[in-house]
Order: sequence, then C-alpha cells, then structure tokens
Amino acid sequence: MKNTYFTPGPAELYPSFARHLQTAMDEQIGSISHRSQRFRDIYKFTDEQLRTLLTIPATHGIFFTGSASEVWERVVFNCVEHESFHLVNGSFSQKFHDYAQSLHKYAHVFEKPFGEGFDATDIEVPEYAELVCLTHNETSSGVQMRPADMHKLKRKYPKKLFVVDMVSSAPYPNLDFSLIDSAFFSVQKAFGMPAGLGVWIANQACLAKAERLQKYESITTGAHHTLPTLWKHYQTFETPATPNVLYIYLLGKIAEDLNRIGIDTVRKQTEEKARMLYKFLDDSSRYKPFVEAERHRSQTVVVATTKNPADTIASAKQAGMIIGSGYGSFKDSQVRIANFPAVSIDQVQLLINELKK
Amino acid sequence: MKNTYFTPGPAELYPSFARHLQTAMDEQIGSISHRSQRFRDIYKFTDEQLRTLLTIPATHGIFFTGSASEVWERVVFNCVEHESFHLVNGSFSQKFHDYAQSLHKYAHVFEKPFGEGFDATDIEVPEYAELVCLTHNETSSGVQMRPADMHKLKRKYPKKLFVVDMVSSAPYPNLDFSLIDSAFFSVQKAFGMPAGLGVWIANQACLAKAERLQKYESITTGAHHTLPTLWKHYQTFETPATPNVLYIYLLGKIAEDLNRIGIDTVRKQTEEKARMLYKFLDDSSRYKPFVEAERHRSQTVVVATTKNPADTIASAKQAGMIIGSGYGSFKDSQVRIANFPAVSIDQVQLLINELKK
Repeated sequence: MKNTYFTPGPAELYPSFARHLQTAMDEQIGSISHRSQRFRDIYKFTDEQLRTLLTIPATHGIFFTGSASEVWERVVFNCVEHESFHLVNGSFSQKFHDYAQSLHKYAHVFEKPFGEGFDATDIEVPEYAELVCLTHNETSSGVQMRPADMHKLKRKYPKKLFVVDMVSSAPYPNLDFSLIDSAFFSVQKAFGMPAGLGVWIANQACLAKAERLQKYESITTGAHHTLPTLWKHYQTFETPATPNVLYIYLLGKIAEDLNRIGIDTVRKQTEEKARMLYKFLDDSSRYKPFVEAERHRSQTVVVATTKNPADTIASAKQAGMIIGSGYGSFKDSQVRIANFPAVSIDQVQLLINELKK
Repeated sequence: MKNTYFTPGPAELYPSFARHLQTAMDEQIGSISHRSQRFRDIYKFTDEQLRTLLTIPATHGIFFTGSASEVWERVVFNCVEHESFHLVNGSFSQKFHDYAQSLHKYAHVFEKPFGEGFDATDIEVPEYAELVCLTHNETSSGVQMRPADMHKLKRKYPKKLFVVDMVSSAPYPNLDFSLIDSAFFSVQKAFGMPAGLGVWIANQACLAKAERLQKYESITTGAHHTLPTLWKHYQTFETPATPNVLYIYLLGKIAEDLNRIGIDTVRKQTEEKARMLYKFLDDSSRYKPFVEAERHRSQTVVVATTKNPADTIASAKQAGMIIGSGYGSFKDSQVRIANFPAVSIDQVQLLINELKK
C-alpha cells in the first residue's frame, strides 16, 4: 500500500500526477525538441494556466530554472548592484541572505528568532537597498508573512524591487503582482510534483535593472539563465537552454486541474485543513503549535512541538502516513506537517485521528 | 504508433525508461525526502553505476545540476580566476566561451570553421590560461575531438585544469580521468532520458582551485551549486539544494542497464551504427557527410548535407522517424541524425532504408 506524504517537500504527488505522466509518456513529451512548435505550445499553456491561477499580469514573465534555490542566485545577480535587504527568521530565508553574500553584495538583514514572524510595521528598509527579499513561508519554522504586510511594505518603499520566496506555499498566497516585482517557487511542494523545476516570475522593472547591470564592467550578472536571455527567448515561448520539458508540461496540467477547482476554493480548502490541524494542536496535551502568533502561523507547513517527535513519526509511518521531522536541530522537539493541495480534508482528518491515538 | 526519435537531444528515450519510471512511481520516489537514507542510497547507486560505466576514479566526485548548460557556468566560476581557453568550432563550444566572457573572464579562443575539428598538434594553450575547455562532441556540426588528442594535450600542459563537455556523447568517449580533471553531460542525449538533469564530474584539483578562489574578495565563485558545497554534501551522498531525485534514480537504473551490456559493447554498437550511417551517406548521391575528415566525424551526432532537408525530414516523419534539422542557419542545407544507445542497429537500418527511397 502506498504511503501518504505530509512532508514539506518533496511531498505527496498531486492525485492527477500519475495520469498526466502517462499521457506525457504516450505522447513522447520526453523526446520532443525544445525548439519545436509542440514545446512552444506547452510553455504557452503552462504560462496561461499559472497566470490564471496566480493572477499574474502581462507586466510579468514566467521563466523556468532547475530549482527555486537557483532563483535565489539569479534574482540577486540580475536585480542587485550593491545592496539587498533580507527578512530572516529561519533556515531558508537565511540561505537567501547567504546567497547574496556569496555574490559579494552588501546584504542587509533584519532578523527575528526562529518561530517568529514579520509585520509591515516592524520593518525599516535600509536607504540604499535595491532589492527587498521576503519569504512568504519559512519552511523550516512554519512561519508565514501575510501578503497584506508585503503589499503595505512595498507601498511604503515603491521604488525598491520586491521579491517573494513562495517556495513552500504557492499557489496559496494571494500576491498582488501590481506591487510584487518578482516571486518564485519550486514544484515539489504545493504543486505536488517531483523536484527538478523552479518557476521564476519577474516583471519589466526587474528586466530593466538586469539590462542596466549587464552593461557594467565591475560586476557580473552571471551567464546562465540571466533575466535578459530568459526574457528574450520567452517572447516566442522558448528557453535559452534545454529545460525540463516534461515537468513544464506536467506543471501546466496540474495548474489546469487547480484552475478547474478554482483558486479561491483551493485557498479555502488549504485554510480549512490548516484550521483542523491547528485546532487539534491547540486542544492536544501532547502537541502544541510551535508558532505562537496566529497571524504568523503557516497555512501550508504546520510545525508542532512535542516531546517525542521520533515516536510520532514512527507510529504515523506505521499507519502509512509520512510526516516531516523538525528542521535541523529542532529534530528532537518538533514535527512538520505539510498541508498542500495534494492531501484532502479526509486525509488530514485521518492523520489527526492517528496523532490522537 | 510511436515515433522513433533520431534527434540530437531531447532524443529517443532508452527502451527501459518507461519500466523504471513505473517502478519509481510505485515506490513513490517522487515524494521521498532528499535528506533521507533512501535518497542517499539512490545517489550512491547512481554514483557507483556512473563510476563503473565511465571508469571514474575516486579522485573525482559526481554532482548533479539542473542542466549541462549550468555546468558551463559553474566550472568557470569555480576553476577560473582570470583566464580560460576554449576550442570553438560550433554553436555549443561558442556558448561555453560566451559564458566565460559573461562571467568577465579573459576567455581565450582558438577557433575553427563550422564542420572542422581539432587535433592536439594544432593547439597552443596560452600561458596564463587556467582552465582548458574542450568539447568532445560539437552537437551543432557533428564534429568530435578524439580523447587521445585531449589526453595528449593535457600531457603537454599538465599544470592546467582540463574540462570536457561531453553533453551529446557520454558515455561514448573513453576519457582517461587520471588526465581529465572535469567533464559533464546532460541526460537527454545518449542516456535516453527527458531533459532536466546535468551531471558534473570534477576532481580534487578543481575543488582545491575553487576553495582558493572562494577566499578572494575580488571575484565571486557564485552562490548556488558551488563546487565546495556540492563536494561537502557529496561526502554523505546528499546535495546542497533539493535535486531532481526522480531523474537521479532513473539515471542510475539506465546506467546499470548499460553496464549490464558492458561499456565496450555499447561503444562498439555506437561505432557500428555510425559506420552504417556514414557509409550510406558516402554512397548516396543525395546526401553526403558534412564533416570531411573521418577522424573528426562524430560517432553520436551524424550531420549530412542535402539539397532538401525539409523534404527528408517530412518523409522520414511520415514513416514514424524523427530526425533533426541542421543547426541554426544550416537548417536549409543539413539534417542531423542522432546515434544514441536508445536506437538499435535495426532501427538505424530502417532509417537508412527510408532515406534511400
């Protein structure tokens, strides 16, 4: 019998994934040229489905990379001459900051302890920061930053570029792309696919910045997947290098399935399942939600504190349910439960029943 | 009915691919954590199979990236402080050179016309070049450089790092990794997989160079997939970021299948099919081999000159065989026929029969 994966990515595959994969194999999508009309049609279809799902306007292009981690590097290369600014409250927002430092940028940081979140009112963006780097969902600690706070911050600093890491939450956060310049995610989280594809959304302001930086001799914007090259090829729904054609096809089909359900319903279902999980944790004597402030509790990665996480994980596994361990040193005191669209309300209820035992 | 793809990548899937994919789906490989023992076992298995297949010694690590194009960037970032040297005779060796320039390196070039190849005796490596960049198989023109020439050149310049792009030929070229410091390929060519995974082989000399460069303030070695980070995680068969777990699994299984046949046999079969194709072109009145010098004719991507390539491609397609167009402006005068392990001697014979009509 198959297990149900409640892990925060790689995660449970979307229920229709196997069917779409079979169609792709039947249609030999793995063999088609990335310079063919068939591929351009696939890219266009996936672009359209993601645009509908995430309400992405024509000002923004949608590009494919090898992973979301790669985008951390690309967005800094292409949008920062000297200074970036990072909100850091966990391992992944920390890595984003580390990447900027590795690229020799002056990477300002405003840090909060693991488990705490950010509100717009907390934040002063340094004067010369060119790019504000926000993490919608800190996968390591289960903390979210509300889109309303992101939008408010951008309104306060309209001249700075804003990029949102929504790796472990997209398509849940309802970002207003008239304010957010760039965002990115990977497909092995809430899209229910295997890992191996990053999606990078960026607007013309990012492009203009990248084009300006490319002319400077003092810095490099990188060579692979530069924004100007991605954008140029995007005009005809192509890519500069051979992309993961199969996964781009599959992402389009899953986004289409989510659009059939409707993004509002997908978001409501996510909130309903999160409510069930947090209520269980609140009521339990053995578990409690790690994130105290309700407004900062992630809707897609629920982190619980418990005395014997290894026991919890082991007994859930015996019941065919795989839940995630706490991140890094929190392995000994936490479990992480992913709440992605691939798991149903019934499956979440089964997990809760199991945890109650 | 399914087509047979003789395209130079993406290409025909390896005959066992669908079976391995089904096993992977049954075993939920798409959902497992990249921090689990199950993943470490997969990485180790694929590493061992590739080591056997390509005779890679313990001095070299094997790493995974999003694509081979990404490795063009990584190897320059990690192995070049100021100067690289490139042999350029087609579009892909040119792109390797372009990448080095984009990273603001002084990228020396020795160029030959499209369709011509390099011998060791031709080549003077500039005194301060740190990395010598060779392309085993120029996919655009169907020109190969013989490993013997690569080895001879390295012996002449033993202190320089040598990297070989074997994107569209691995596992065909029999590289001597006691001489070649680094090599890389992608899986959608001769390994018969869908695109979306690059494989980077690099030795301790490359690592030592990267570690030295990381200490300099004047240059960056990049942030994502730096060689020291890849190497550090490789010690426990992990990766710094979430990799394409599914494709790493599939690559290991296909490498195992090729090892069962035996690399000598795989290489002999490749040569036999190439011999059949070139003999047909030599004997034909309508086609001729584009590459004149026999020693420079690619064994894996056969390029033919013909008056009406569009007609050739269309009639082959009607017979269920997809062949590649000439690269870029050579679309109007050439076709490209991939000769990868996924197509059998019988299938090559069927193609020749069709082209004879």
